[in-house]
Amino acid sequence: MSLILGLVFRITHYKIESGEGTSMKAFAMLGIGKTGWIEKDRPACGPLDAIVRPIVLAPCTSDVHTVWEGAVGDRHNLILGHEGVGEVVEVGDYVKDFKPGDRVILSAITPDWNSLEAQAGFAMHSGGMLAGWKFSNIKDGVFAEFIHVNDADGNLALLPEGIEPEVGAMLSDMVPTGLHGSELAGVQFGDTVCVIGIGPVGLMGVRGAVLRGASHIYAVGTRPNCVAIAKEYGATDIISYKDGPLDKQILDKTKGKGVDRVIIAGGTVDTFAEAIRMLKPGGSIGNINYLGEGDFIKIPRADWGVGMGHKTITGGLMPGGRLRSEKLAALVVAGRIDPAKLITHRFEGFDQLEKALMLMKDKPKDLIKPVVKIT
Amino acid sequence: MSLILGLVFRITHYKIESGEGTSMKAFAMLGIGKTGWIEKDRPACGPLDAIVRPIVLAPCTSDVHTVWEGAVGDRHNLILGHEGVGEVVEVGDYVKDFKPGDRVILSAITPDWNSLEAQAGFAMHSGGMLAGWKFSNIKDGVFAEFIHVNDADGNLALLPEGIEPEVGAMLSDMVPTGLHGSELAGVQFGDTVCVIGIGPVGLMGVRGAVLRGASHIYAVGTRPNCVAIAKEYGATDIISYKDGPLDKQILDKTKGKGVDRVIIAGGTVDTFAEAIRMLKPGGSIGNINYLGEGDFIKIPRADWGVGMGHKTITGGLMPGGRLRSEKLAALVVAGRIDPAKLITHRFEGFDQLEKALMLMKDKPKDLIKPVVKIT
Amino acid sequence: MSLILGLVFRITHYKIESGEGTSMKAFAMLGIGKTGWIEKDRPACGPLDAIVRPIVLAPCTSDVHTVWEGAVGDRHNLILGHEGVGEVVEVGDYVKDFKPGDRVILSAITPDWNSLEAQAGFAMHSGGMLAGWKFSNIKDGVFAEFIHVNDADGNLALLPEGIEPEVGAMLSDMVPTGLHGSELAGVQFGDTVCVIGIGPVGLMGVRGAVLRGASHIYAVGTRPNCVAIAKEYGATDIISYKDGPLDKQILDKTKGKGVDRVIIAGGTVDTFAEAIRMLKPGGSIGNINYLGEGDFIKIPRADWGVGMGHKTITGGLMPGGRLRSEKLAALVVAGRIDPAKLITHRFEGFDQLEKALMLMKDKPKDLIKPVVKIT
Amino acid sequence: MSLILGLVFRITHYKIESGEGTSMKAFAMLGIGKTGWIEKDRPACGPLDAIVRPIVLAPCTSDVHTVWEGAVGDRHNLILGHEGVGEVVEVGDYVKDFKPGDRVILSAITPDWNSLEAQAGFAMHSGGMLAGWKFSNIKDGVFAEFIHVNDADGNLALLPEGIEPEVGAMLSDMVPTGLHGSELAGVQFGDTVCVIGIGPVGLMGVRGAVLRGASHIYAVGTRPNCVAIAKEYGATDIISYKDGPLDKQILDKTKGKGVDRVIIAGGTVDTFAEAIRMLKPGGSIGNINYLGEGDFIKIPRADWGVGMGHKTITGGLMPGGRLRSEKLAALVVAGRIDPAKLITHRFEGFDQLEKALMLMKDKPKDLIKPVVKIT
Repeated sequence: MSLILGLVFRITHYKIESGEGTSMKAFAMLGIGKTGWIEKDRPACGPLDAIVRPIVLAPCTSDVHTVWEGAVGDRHNLILGHEGVGEVVEVGDYVKDFKPGDRVILSAITPDWNSLEAQAGFAMHSGGMLAGWKFSNIKDGVFAEFIHVNDADGNLALLPEGIEPEVGAMLSDMVPTGLHGSELAGVQFGDTVCVIGIGPVGLMGVRGAVLRGASHIYAVGTRPNCVAIAKEYGATDIISYKDGPLDKQILDKTKGKGVDRVIIAGGTVDTFAEAIRMLKPGGSIGNINYLGEGDFIKIPRADWGVGMGHKTITGGLMPGGRLRSEKLAALVVAGRIDPAKLITHRFEGFDQLEKALMLMKDKPKDLIKPVVKIT
Repeated sequence: MSLILGLVFRITHYKIESGEGTSMKAFAMLGIGKTGWIEKDRPACGPLDAIVRPIVLAPCTSDVHTVWEGAVGDRHNLILGHEGVGEVVEVGDYVKDFKPGDRVILSAITPDWNSLEAQAGFAMHSGGMLAGWKFSNIKDGVFAEFIHVNDADGNLALLPEGIEPEVGAMLSDMVPTGLHGSELAGVQFGDTVCVIGIGPVGLMGVRGAVLRGASHIYAVGTRPNCVAIAKEYGATDIISYKDGPLDKQILDKTKGKGVDRVIIAGGTVDTFAEAIRMLKPGGSIGNINYLGEGDFIKIPRADWGVGMGHKTITGGLMPGGRLRSEKLAALVVAGRIDPAKLITHRFEGFDQLEKALMLMKDKPKDLIKPVVKIT
Repeated sequence: MSLILGLVFRITHYKIESGEGTSMKAFAMLGIGKTGWIEKDRPACGPLDAIVRPIVLAPCTSDVHTVWEGAVGDRHNLILGHEGVGEVVEVGDYVKDFKPGDRVILSAITPDWNSLEAQAGFAMHSGGMLAGWKFSNIKDGVFAEFIHVNDADGNLALLPEGIEPEVGAMLSDMVPTGLHGSELAGVQFGDTVCVIGIGPVGLMGVRGAVLRGASHIYAVGTRPNCVAIAKEYGATDIISYKDGPLDKQILDKTKGKGVDRVIIAGGTVDTFAEAIRMLKPGGSIGNINYLGEGDFIKIPRADWGVGMGHKTITGGLMPGGRLRSEKLAALVVAGRIDPAKLITHRFEGFDQLEKALMLMKDKPKDLIKPVVKIT
Repeated sequence: MSLILGLVFRITHYKIESGEGTSMKAFAMLGIGKTGWIEKDRPACGPLDAIVRPIVLAPCTSDVHTVWEGAVGDRHNLILGHEGVGEVVEVGDYVKDFKPGDRVILSAITPDWNSLEAQAGFAMHSGGMLAGWKFSNIKDGVFAEFIHVNDADGNLALLPEGIEPEVGAMLSDMVPTGLHGSELAGVQFGDTVCVIGIGPVGLMGVRGAVLRGASHIYAVGTRPNCVAIAKEYGATDIISYKDGPLDKQILDKTKGKGVDRVIIAGGTVDTFAEAIRMLKPGGSIGNINYLGEGDFIKIPRADWGVGMGHKTITGGLMPGGRLRSEKLAALVVAGRIDPAKLITHRFEGFDQLEKALMLMKDKPKDLIKPVVKIT
């Protein structure tokens, strides 16, 4: 975080007076509960950075949290958005691997790779907890005519031939966050897994569990198109929270044994108690759900084995950066995952960003994920 | 659990009418809040089992929980105790590696090694959560003239030459439980570690952290002899809960960085909130404290990174069995750990077990661990 | 190993005089290079054991190594075979979870679960390196009218409804060995993987790589039906050893980068040099190929980073036992793997075992795996 | 590697004309087998870099390999050295955490932290196998009046109060390389470990094994002062290669069981065969020895379990960079390791570097590690 702040400070000295003018249009949070179109200085390109023009952008539920729930605090004229694919228009002097004209995947998480946290294996927390998440959080996001990417070599990835830009935009956040669930939960060959929540992240959580070797996957959700895709992605059983406590349903279906892993991709702070109760001793919970409300996650003492049941609880922001984007893009190219299924709504034109975001806010029944084609 | 219940059922068919008589003296829980001396049938030896005569026994805080807090439910005439060293007096037909006359370490946890849980790497939960803990829980304990050990080849270990029996008794529970803290928390070279609670288990937690490569170890406790031993074992800083919230103290001492790992070996369900707050993103909590009371462990949502801070929480019963006992005994022989320091009170004679247990109950200020020499 | 030898010794005392007579027919190794039908005493059932009657059996290349290459030394009247599905006809007094009439998967590896090696996480080496492999190695195999299974609760698994017995027989060795390749090599999301050898084990190696999250999978082989199935299982590229050194081909195809993981399921001791050369620093080799000949595996010093390239080399016998069989069977039930594709030749009748084994020896071009239906 | 090459190219634009002049004195490799004092341009400081003036320097056996064995190829006027402590004299515009006057530990390995290899967890191979090792390999080393450090924030560490500069110089290479042995071999509580070679790296290998929880440590070496320090660091047994094959000696001392882990810190490509033979199935070899000669490491097929013994072989360059240096320095401050014991010879004055290097070349019997105090 401190590096980027340092960069923000210093890049005034490197400011490039482009022929296209120094001002640009962007869609921003104006304050809690308020969004709007703004004019802002076009970002300057530091020596390790890139400036990218958007091709496809996608709003995220996090943007809704940010604006209408004030989840990251009050912000004024903070450009929103952290998902998209674009074209490089400028690179800094020290950038080696990218050049203007390259089509690239933007990662929602763009760490400072030389930070102590990154050296410890947790780049997403570079500079402080969650501070690897910069776009639309600690710097301007991607809903702009020009996007500043810190450490271009470390954080951009070429969009491979054969991946449509709108599919590439799913690689910014939906795919890496969803797949991280299985990594956190430590899915092994033949494990039974419960995935709680089958919005776009949870659906990718289902697919990730398949690609770590899960056998039976219990997916929790009710919306018909999500249920259909969950099955296509590999869910073997669908569970509705309307049919009673999840742990009871799971214990019934597993003859009292419970599951080896739980991936939490929806629900609230109260979901964890159910997750603990459905988990075998020696099992793990991997949370990939942004917990927006509530003071405490409550772990039931007895069901947690009076502290000694080896039921591990963890949760984490997706790993970001270039290698991750490249590896997950390779999974798409190889046909292991098909993120196109997530896209239910398509818009065209930069000015449609607002409509797409409002859709995320209003969540119509048939929505999974909207995208906006810019160019 | 089910195997041992099966065995208990079946061993009536194998019952050995020994020349020493079929009845024995034992110290037992008579009901919640009540203990006393009882006469009970001497246990019979199944084909894989051993019968052991005690040499040194030690009471544990768990025995206090069991009797006076009813922690494992109401029990009648359940023989107490799960720590000790003894001499084998009889082995079953299929026992290969032990014979009468062998001096052995009794492990507090005696799993069914062919159970599904053990095959999954969690032998301590064989047959059900915590069910690898049999002595004084799901079968009679070791405070008896004759002790039944299930799966002798899998669960006994020879007491090496050069380890005193009273030191060997620390290998039943104190050493393996304490050292498990660092395994659960995943201590790495140079990590900073906070060990909360420096009773006998926490002191071994400190020593275990040293032997996994911790640099600075912040030990939380106040009793002077515990503090002195914590320093001898390798604690670099001592913290008192009387000086304010632990997380504040730790953050002060670490210039706001926090620690890499927390080992919880004392406190209550509320200790976890402090632990989360003092932990770096990417850090881990390993709990080895039996949580006797409270409905929920409460994890503060924001300090837990809104579910995405990679602050892992786990807790687990010590691994038991033969290999573990042999490996930890080898650490004593090699001089890496010196459990003798834990022993503050020594009694002599089988009938002194009651006094030793009452000492655990009353917890005088200078008590760390009592032992009772039987023969 | 020692337990089973102990059992073999002791079970004479428990020998059951069955109404079906004490003698049985079996197909055995008579000496190096010689096989034949023999009469042998029907095995007795120890207290933890089961006796199983075969339903489907399958010969393995290992049987060919054993007989015609003397790979495990000279043996006389050693019953061959370690793959199959059967019906329990008798269980010992201490067996809890199986009863006569149960249809079960026989695991090629039947460890002693209380051994020190199993407690250390390496049950397949219980009692000594590779000694968890008992059938047709250190005790009689499964090509018999009655099959002795040590530790029935630990080593049998129920054949689930919906899995054909011939498919279940693939769960004895082909599936668990193949899938172990990815575990040994540590395949992660998006990894590029080379699988060398696409016989039945290598084909399952391909499928295992998919189910651990591999992106591009380079499968090395030439036989048309194997190539076709490799693609169906998820191989993205096929490489022929006839087209030059494998490492050159891989480096060409990966623009000089190499692969993240290599699974060796064929070839010879010389295959490792190619594997090292195609591997990225930080990559791993997982060997699941029985290396029958040659004094040394030769690791090229410079390509191994003068000892410092973090190119990890390991290889291991499949994990066996009940949990493993249950978990892999669950993968079949969930439709993640389809081992039926491996079966190219079907025989019917106990006396066809010899023909099936000769087929494995002669390896006709279209052979992948034969099975023999017994009852 | 490519980044630094890029920097070297580009820093001409940033070249600083210092008041102290642009030329400096340095001790260099002139060609294979030849060393000498040279004058060279003082390095310029790129925006992320630092320029450091040496306080204490130390030669390494690698320097001897480089010059007299041509281990990294022929080089002309390559400044030698990669161990030392210095004072920062200049930092680039984007350096946040260091400033002129800071006393710092130089890490032998200075990775490009945003490289794909670093993102994969193998920073030491950033830009290609071993290419995180830059000093005296792919750029000028530290035996100069001014030392260029790439990515100062990522690769420097403050020398803590209380660590003498000469001890700090042991943190450049000897300590991190030695301790990496136990990480590679995966030492666990109570493991028996053989450390082959007890030069300075092997001695730190012994200490590292203690600090990962090893019980019995068999240290292989003969020189009396090394043997004495090995014991002080925690070796329990000393073995001489003069007394016969190492594996035979180890198997004798362990009653045929072998050891759980082998750390190779000396010997040749032939040492691995002995290591494999002394290793238990399920055990691991961690190599930290630079293998300067020989075409192949030869792994004995049968002793390696015909490819299936789970005897893992790995080897790796030390992890470098700031976090590692900080963590290991913390171990020194906490008193866990005492690298001062390694220093047997002390020189004073920049011009004594040559003498110190020649000492490494000639290896007198009492030499462990020389240091040169510069200022």
